[in-house]
Amino acid sequence: MASDGDGRVAPSRPRGSYPKGQARRQQILDEAVLVFGRSGSMSGSLREVAKRVGLTPAGLLHHFASKEELFAEVLRQRDERVRDAAGEPAEHGLIAQAAAVVAYNQTTRGLTSLYTTVVAEAADPDHPLHDDFAERYRARAEGTAELLRAGQRAGEIAPDIDPEAAARLISAVMDGIQQQWLLDETVDMTALFDEFVRGYLHPAASPR
Amino acid sequence: MASDGDGRVAPSRPRGSYPKGQARRQQILDEAVLVFGRSGSMSGSLREVAKRVGLTPAGLLHHFASKEELFAEVLRQRDERVRDAAGEPAEHGLIAQAAAVVAYNQTTRGLTSLYTTVVAEAADPDHPLHDDFAERYRARAEGTAELLRAGQRAGEIAPDIDPEAAARLISAVMDGIQQQWLLDETVDMTALFDEFVRGYLHPAASPR
Repeated sequence: MASDGDGRVAPSRPRGSYPKGQARRQQILDEAVLVFGRSGSMSGSLREVAKRVGLTPAGLLHHFASKEELFAEVLRQRDERVRDAAGEPAEHGLIAQAAAVVAYNQTTRGLTSLYTTVVAEAADPDHPLHDDFAERYRARAEGTAELLRAGQRAGEIAPDIDPEAAARLISAVMDGIQQQWLLDETVDMTALFDEFVRGYLHPAASPR
Repeated sequence: MASDGDGRVAPSRPRGSYPKGQARRQQILDEAVLVFGRSGSMSGSLREVAKRVGLTPAGLLHHFASKEELFAEVLRQRDERVRDAAGEPAEHGLIAQAAAVVAYNQTTRGLTSLYTTVVAEAADPDHPLHDDFAERYRARAEGTAELLRAGQRAGEIAPDIDPEAAARLISAVMDGIQQQWLLDETVDMTALFDEFVRGYLHPAASPR
């Protein structure tokens, strides 16, 4: 999902080690997180980032090995901001943290869209980020399943759900409702996620 | 989702009306559905389709206004095959049809991947298929909600779920588990979908 704060896209290696190149690289990334956070079109955004740092799009990509590497680094910095905004699941409670991530993603449409596109492209086994994303989802599923089991022991999570499957389903719902919201902003991601929590994760207050 | 059979990507207009051009176009599409259905890499697949019909990739795109148009047409023909394989929700029952779609998508990895990428790119409001996909999800949600209400009246769907939200959630889960399966084929889409149906859509057999 464009979503959580607990997985990460592996950081890419900076090219060259000159302080000036490093500063320029960070300047590009800062602008990219801003511009992608706001904007919709990916190619348009790339041009705008380049313009804001006084480069051509081709010149901008001189600071990264590829467009994929720039996007990976933008998403890594985005992960940090999501963590700052929504905290860690273990810290705030799984459901509260997930709901905070859903709310945060609504405020950074362009980055959410970038994430969705990159993860879809990464389905290709030859994509440079394929293994990173597979591991990101696997690690998150494992962490979430553990929190769900703890929640079941505490009586906060329905006792009959399968924690491993539920962990994967939480990511799936977050990714899927995000995709629908990107296509149509009248889709209320928060309400959909609440309904999923109410109907699936929470123990029923009364017999259904 | 890469998923259902009830929404459609709008068909593109054939370029020119010469029977020979039409036949060539269909030949490209037939090969494309085959090659994308099997393969992983999108650019690699495009090259292979071109090769199989004796064209260069650029020559292939001469028969379509753009790569997006080719992909839209491939996905439209895929929709028809999904319908042939899984039927209509109203005909076979919502849950059985959705489960059949999940199972079908596992057999056509490349097309599933193509769908996921195109729908992610269509999040861009300037993408030529943006409105088509928004409408596709909206129409499907409407149809699904109606079937869910009927299911509630028949006692087959949990009485306390919100049919409109549940309709969106079913698509979200199908899209999201598909994405995770594309990244990691050890993810069992069928088991995940079954757990979602059991825990959310179905009335509990006993109080939870």
